[in-house]
Amino acid sequence: MTVLILTCEQDVTADMVVAELHGAGVPVVRLDPADLPGAVALSGEYVHGAFQGHLCAGGRLVSTNGLRSIWVRRPGVPAARAAEPSAWLTEETSQALYGMLDGTGARWMNRPDAARRARHKPWQLRLAQRTGLPVPATLITTFPQAARDFAERFPDLVVKPVSGTHPQDPPRAVPTSRIAPDADFAAVAFGPTLLQRRIAKRADIRLTAVGDRLLAARKPAAADSDDVDVRFAPSAGPWRPVDVPPRIATAVHAYLRGAELTYGAFDFVEDADGIWWFLECNQSGQFGFVEMDTGQPIARTLARWLARHDGGEQESEPPSSLRPAH
Amino acid sequence: MTVLILTCEQDVTADMVVAELHGAGVPVVRLDPADLPGAVALSGEYVHGAFQGHLCAGGRLVSTNGLRSIWVRRPGVPAARAAEPSAWLTEETSQALYGMLDGTGARWMNRPDAARRARHKPWQLRLAQRTGLPVPATLITTFPQAARDFAERFPDLVVKPVSGTHPQDPPRAVPTSRIAPDADFAAVAFGPTLLQRRIAKRADIRLTAVGDRLLAARKPAAADSDDVDVRFAPSAGPWRPVDVPPRIATAVHAYLRGAELTYGAFDFVEDADGIWWFLECNQSGQFGFVEMDTGQPIARTLARWLARHDGGEQESEPPSSLRPAH
Repeated sequence: MTVLILTCEQDVTADMVVAELHGAGVPVVRLDPADLPGAVALSGEYVHGAFQGHLCAGGRLVSTNGLRSIWVRRPGVPAARAAEPSAWLTEETSQALYGMLDGTGARWMNRPDAARRARHKPWQLRLAQRTGLPVPATLITTFPQAARDFAERFPDLVVKPVSGTHPQDPPRAVPTSRIAPDADFAAVAFGPTLLQRRIAKRADIRLTAVGDRLLAARKPAAADSDDVDVRFAPSAGPWRPVDVPPRIATAVHAYLRGAELTYGAFDFVEDADGIWWFLECNQSGQFGFVEMDTGQPIARTLARWLARHDGGEQESEPPSSLRPAH
Repeated sequence: MTVLILTCEQDVTADMVVAELHGAGVPVVRLDPADLPGAVALSGEYVHGAFQGHLCAGGRLVSTNGLRSIWVRRPGVPAARAAEPSAWLTEETSQALYGMLDGTGARWMNRPDAARRARHKPWQLRLAQRTGLPVPATLITTFPQAARDFAERFPDLVVKPVSGTHPQDPPRAVPTSRIAPDADFAAVAFGPTLLQRRIAKRADIRLTAVGDRLLAARKPAAADSDDVDVRFAPSAGPWRPVDVPPRIATAVHAYLRGAELTYGAFDFVEDADGIWWFLECNQSGQFGFVEMDTGQPIARTLARWLARHDGGEQESEPPSSLRPAH
């Protein structure tokens, strides 16, 4: 039973996990959907009520029934490197690949439709509330008057994008910024705006959830820093492992179940009372930088989750028509 | 409790359903996400573990807690009619709107993430097989030799797009076509190709599923027609109501549960033995043309599903900051 990893070529995080899997003797096929069709080929046959699917990459042929798990890491756009790329070919290729894989019994990290839904920040905030995570007072609005009223009730605010940052589209990254309560909110009429009560933070928390395993790290805040966005703030020391409070652990497990995610990188801020406030859950968040600082075995935990064998369908011999031609 | 309809302005099918809802005295808000921000406004507040959301359209303000159901009919692209449209504004607006609505208790027809998954043809075929619907032998491949082998086993073939036709993108419509078994299949290496055994058909079947109600219609095939695509074939008589065989009904209900759909337009072909062969399920398929021919009350059935009251959260008075400014 093989682990399938969908990611681009330059991906050192995937390299770490692949090394763990190789060390454990687990078969791995790694491919980039951008190389389909071309260096990657697929075939699936629906005959007499059964399905037989095959993928070919790097000279290796694997049966989709023989996949134990699929890790959607940083895949390229399907057919992006085709001889004659087009939006139509990308759509056809995406449907063929993901539609075929979604019909197999493999475990996903994460299933594409769950991943897409889980990127919605407003949905994240509601799910976090429902599962018992503390959520800072937040407003998403196109009503200027609603923004003004909110700023009166919560004078210390930050503004951030509704959609967060798409991992494959760095230019979209907009830092979270503080705003003055007497700001002119007229412009919110021109685009949905997310305002959130600023938490006076003692530390940033990154909690990485891999299946049922939770690995949390804590980074103290610089005493006088006005930077609210950890990605752009000066470092006040490295990430260090930290225990997860039991109530947070229970809520995070409920969140993952509700979101149908098997992997999530949760960002919290810790306030002066030690409360962890939920900011967001990135279903494809990086973990290399945490592992580097803390030495927490995230890559190994992830490799073990991918390698776990839950039984399922058996691998079968591929038909001769699928043997690589060369 | 209000019914929310997301669709564009020119939509006679939605008009039919709105008329039914008006007739039944059910409050309706109809809006096009293309008008947000602008003619449509939204606001959602996450405070003290609770969520209060509001939408404003056509001078009407509705609480998201007061939505009994949401019909995703033919919505425009979010922010498409904004003063300064951009990909970023579309993403922000889409996340704000759908992320907020997805957190409510309203019933969906259909939930966007389920709808997106359900468009995948390879996934449809597998689900159809699993739920017991007869599926014609099908191959999706980029291996020329696999295509040749398949054509030898099933000499009478049609070719069709893997992705089907996106309802909002008519130029993508590609008719299903017959192909000769001695065709040159070398080109399948350049794009995933769907080959399917042609069913010698006696009739086309359109089965419209609305919640638990199944309404099927049948249209006899022209005796000498070589057209395999009902959309482009000469008419051999109008659609007529037809009973759904019990085994098909059971399988269709299982399909809808598996796909998490509350609406689906199923296309079958009936062969000489009376077997209904599954071709596809369009989660946003049209029904006006069937209702016109058959007189089946599809719009009314849909309106009743949308109007059904399952209890849930109560509507509350909107805060003054959300009153339209004008």
